[in-house]
Amino acid sequence: MLDISKNSVSMAKHIFHQHIQSGDVVLDATCGRGKDTLFLAGLVGKYGQVYAMDIQVAAINSTYGLLKDKGLMDRVILIKDNHVNLLEHLHGVSPRAALFNLGYLPGGDKKIITRPDTTIEALNQTITFLAVGGWISIVFYTGHEGGREEYEAVSRYLAGLPQSLVTVMEWKYLNQLNHPPGLLLIHKVGEL
Amino acid sequence: MLDISKNSVSMAKHIFHQHIQSGDVVLDATCGRGKDTLFLAGLVGKYGQVYAMDIQVAAINSTYGLLKDKGLMDRVILIKDNHVNLLEHLHGVSPRAALFNLGYLPGGDKKIITRPDTTIEALNQTITFLAVGGWISIVFYTGHEGGREEYEAVSRYLAGLPQSLVTVMEWKYLNQLNHPPGLLLIHKVGEL
Repeated sequence: MLDISKNSVSMAKHIFHQHIQSGDVVLDATCGRGKDTLFLAGLVGKYGQVYAMDIQVAAINSTYGLLKDKGLMDRVILIKDNHVNLLEHLHGVSPRAALFNLGYLPGGDKKIITRPDTTIEALNQTITFLAVGGWISIVFYTGHEGGREEYEAVSRYLAGLPQSLVTVMEWKYLNQLNHPPGLLLIHKVGEL
Repeated sequence: MLDISKNSVSMAKHIFHQHIQSGDVVLDATCGRGKDTLFLAGLVGKYGQVYAMDIQVAAINSTYGLLKDKGLMDRVILIKDNHVNLLEHLHGVSPRAALFNLGYLPGGDKKIITRPDTTIEALNQTITFLAVGGWISIVFYTGHEGGREEYEAVSRYLAGLPQSLVTVMEWKYLNQLNHPPGLLLIHKVGEL
């Protein structure tokens, strides 16, 4: 059993374990090095589908390499684009879950980071097209330049959403000097 | 499996399920109607011990009735006192876990509520005497008069604790009009 209190990623994984079923369609809006894409590909099984996006070619290449290695690329559609354009690639599909991992690419250029305006726009689209009953996890970082501002903008946006549409939850650490990531979690409970 | 996102109590129960073992000694610092005491008595098993405190005789009576009904009173030591005096009753025992449920007694006098100063003092004592590796859960309420102030005082106190002593985590809801309870979670990782 996952120790959910270990970190925000283990908390998000626990939620997805509980709520994603074999055959589901899900979205990895920031695939990075592909670790979360791999996790999602395992959850959706051989009849499921993972849309995995990233704006950086290095991320797409890493994710491709990892999923190919594991023999799971047939479950994954890789999209090199800004997640603000995600709707163009989903072709009307309603994902059951979506995962956002904010900040910069691990081992990549730390100047290329997710930004409040595009993150919020991508979230807005994802919430609209997500299946009712679906989940969105957002792992956020406050230790890099611009990270706290992005977290504050995103959480303010989410806190303003109607509770007839979504339940918004937050998990974070209060006394850690090294800024471990926190988690924003969205459960879609209805339509606008 | 518990759905941890259902509410803060289910989240706290999941953590305690993972970390309390048969034979452990634990503390219910605010036993109220006894539901958490009953849950803890189940977790610690027949060789474990639950210290259950409350300042109100109605709470002690409810808890006694419930645990007696379930045939589990032999695992429970009931203490009618303010939890600010908890050390006097623990006799040097180091509990593995402690549970605080703030606010007022359900169905009781809503003027009798937990207070920031005594809650913080009781937490301070509990953190000192808790076994290293142990856990404290605090379910907090912001919907009643004084609730938000108590939450803010308690979370400020916890955020100031050194990370060599405890890891402090928080789980809360961001967009709910009816103020569902949140959870503060403390993992003791070392001694002062």
